[in-house]
Amino acid sequence: MKLGDARVFSVPTFSSDSAPRASTPVDRWVAGRIRASVPSARLRFVLWDGFELPYAGDAPVGTIVFRNRRALFSWVWNPDLNFGEAYMFGAVDLQGDLVAMLCEIYRALRRTRPREKASSQPVNDERAARENVHRHYDLGNDFYRLWLDREMLYTCAYFPSADATLEDAQIAKMDRVCRKLKLEPGERVVEAGCGWGSLALFMAKQYGVSVRAFNVSSEQIAYARARAKAEGLAGQVEFVEDDYRNVRGQYDAFVSVGMLEHVGLGDYQAFGSVVERSLTGEGRGLLHFIGRNQPGALNPWIRRRIFPGAYPPALPEVFERVLQPWNLSVLDVENLRLHYASTLDHWRRRFEAASDDVARMFDETFVRAWRLYLAGSQAAFTTGTMQLFQVVFARGASNEIPWTRLD
Amino acid sequence: MKLGDARVFSVPTFSSDSAPRASTPVDRWVAGRIRASVPSARLRFVLWDGFELPYAGDAPVGTIVFRNRRALFSWVWNPDLNFGEAYMFGAVDLQGDLVAMLCEIYRALRRTRPREKASSQPVNDERAARENVHRHYDLGNDFYRLWLDREMLYTCAYFPSADATLEDAQIAKMDRVCRKLKLEPGERVVEAGCGWGSLALFMAKQYGVSVRAFNVSSEQIAYARARAKAEGLAGQVEFVEDDYRNVRGQYDAFVSVGMLEHVGLGDYQAFGSVVERSLTGEGRGLLHFIGRNQPGALNPWIRRRIFPGAYPPALPEVFERVLQPWNLSVLDVENLRLHYASTLDHWRRRFEAASDDVARMFDETFVRAWRLYLAGSQAAFTTGTMQLFQVVFARGASNEIPWTRLD
Repeated sequence: MKLGDARVFSVPTFSSDSAPRASTPVDRWVAGRIRASVPSARLRFVLWDGFELPYAGDAPVGTIVFRNRRALFSWVWNPDLNFGEAYMFGAVDLQGDLVAMLCEIYRALRRTRPREKASSQPVNDERAARENVHRHYDLGNDFYRLWLDREMLYTCAYFPSADATLEDAQIAKMDRVCRKLKLEPGERVVEAGCGWGSLALFMAKQYGVSVRAFNVSSEQIAYARARAKAEGLAGQVEFVEDDYRNVRGQYDAFVSVGMLEHVGLGDYQAFGSVVERSLTGEGRGLLHFIGRNQPGALNPWIRRRIFPGAYPPALPEVFERVLQPWNLSVLDVENLRLHYASTLDHWRRRFEAASDDVARMFDETFVRAWRLYLAGSQAAFTTGTMQLFQVVFARGASNEIPWTRLD
Repeated sequence: MKLGDARVFSVPTFSSDSAPRASTPVDRWVAGRIRASVPSARLRFVLWDGFELPYAGDAPVGTIVFRNRRALFSWVWNPDLNFGEAYMFGAVDLQGDLVAMLCEIYRALRRTRPREKASSQPVNDERAARENVHRHYDLGNDFYRLWLDREMLYTCAYFPSADATLEDAQIAKMDRVCRKLKLEPGERVVEAGCGWGSLALFMAKQYGVSVRAFNVSSEQIAYARARAKAEGLAGQVEFVEDDYRNVRGQYDAFVSVGMLEHVGLGDYQAFGSVVERSLTGEGRGLLHFIGRNQPGALNPWIRRRIFPGAYPPALPEVFERVLQPWNLSVLDVENLRLHYASTLDHWRRRFEAASDDVARMFDETFVRAWRLYLAGSQAAFTTGTMQLFQVVFARGASNEIPWTRLD
């Protein structure tokens, strides 16, 4: 099993050892300060020696257990980073329904403090982009196969009804994307960030278009090419292992599902210029991305351990930098955040069911990190801390746009 | 017939007299400069003495005739204002299909020059807002009855199919607004800018909600109140002659159709704070407004003669100033610009059919000004110079949002 080279899980930043001594009044005071930062969260706080902060709220949702002093103190000076660090290395335990506990924290935080400013966003040049993608998406197809759907879609699904299966919901999502783009047989589509290639193959098979699909993840591209060949679609779908900046040619549709989050804010105008030059006069596009109601940096632990270089934008950031400079016209926006909460719920349950396999592939620290990432993401979409936007656009001068949504 | 007090149509800025003398080489050179500003427009340019600029393009769409030198020269130094001024006072004639000619000009202009900056937008305090509204919407219900639909809706309709009647399309628009808001019987709705009251009455009648509807136009409020009484809905729909800033109380839904264009950019945050304080925890809202792909001031002639104080925003301006400060979450955006082009086509044809009546109510200058406004608006929506956005939003923390659009 090949790991991303830059992963440093092997160097723990926290010890999971329980402190040998009893907690002091200072420890207890610090625990109180931490709880005061999330005053409305229905959570119990317990220290390594069994000391528990007095709890006077409603029925608690879960218990946070600090195993040692370092974990406790680290939460005071950098909670956003060290919450995840301490948890992944076992220095903190979260006992209870993990998603429910994280929802409590998100909701409490929203009431008490502004979000981290998005001022110093990384610029992801081609090398950084490739490295960032490698660290996450090249963890191995076998790993993702354990908990993704059959089609290996690693983006928000669309559940026609809340009880649809994940497999059906991912098919429904792909179909929805194609219908929003009004794809017609024979049209040319370019896809920026194609994952394991399912959408490109679906568009070709179900809508009769030809597709050029770009991705810098070599593991994903290899998988996609093999699938195209096996399904007899290699002549209709070309998988290109390259950066979106190197897209050439003109297309009837530009589609990008789950890539914009990995384009740094500083590269949005470059991304927009690629979109612009790729579209024919009557071309239209669809961007599907994780976003925010208000601009703000991604959690620093997620950036360090899960998605280096990622940034979930607010809609104005996308519109002003990607679409507006080129007079591209927003035709349709849909917010699917509750669908992403459901998608993550499916992934998380499958991941937990396969956690022994994951631990064998990687280690227990990896399992804990990904458990927190998946549960935290589910909580973020459930509480409205994150959004999932699908944006359809066309050239400003084009009247080849759908008359109604039903078309 | 009562006119807005501030209308100054009685003082012509241009004479319609034809110049007594033959055009000079300088006149002809100026005409050439004007045509050079819209090089791709398939239009013929003719001066008062019959001189015509050589035309080498495809089949021309129409002919612009300058009646005198003042009209000609005025277009060089301030075309955005004086195009309309010269036309309305008969100093310029536009011979041909007016909408098609204006489409030619819009398309040609987009290629040649950036839009006027939106830097010095008026701030519309309550007095200015009342005055602005008075000048347009208090032109008299009898006037608007001549060319609006039966329900007196003066906003973009929704045509389920392109050949629907205007009456049906306005009903469909109201129903669409209600369904997007998921109105339930017994809920409370506040409407900011209610026109002649049709939507408020429709919501009450068809969806069983109670409505408080605000408008500063006394003519419109009087009409709406009479209608509520006649239809036995006075207990369910309250029409309030007051500014949106004075909305009090909390509501399950906030709706504003065609008012945001009249809220100055400088007042968006105040408008947002009204929205915020008016919504219950599970409340949702809908804004329906004329907008742009890129920020830019409204044409100065339209601001002078038709809509003082108006500004069509780009989406980021609305999102950043109205929704973002309050963590309101964009759920859905739909761009209906082609529906507005159709709506305007209906209005314009009815207006032309009633133009003799309009001339009797006002005068020929008024007819020409409104002819240009209606045709120009149709051309703007047809060419993508203007957009019509419907935005649905809810509080960021609310999960009482539609699962899918079909709900």
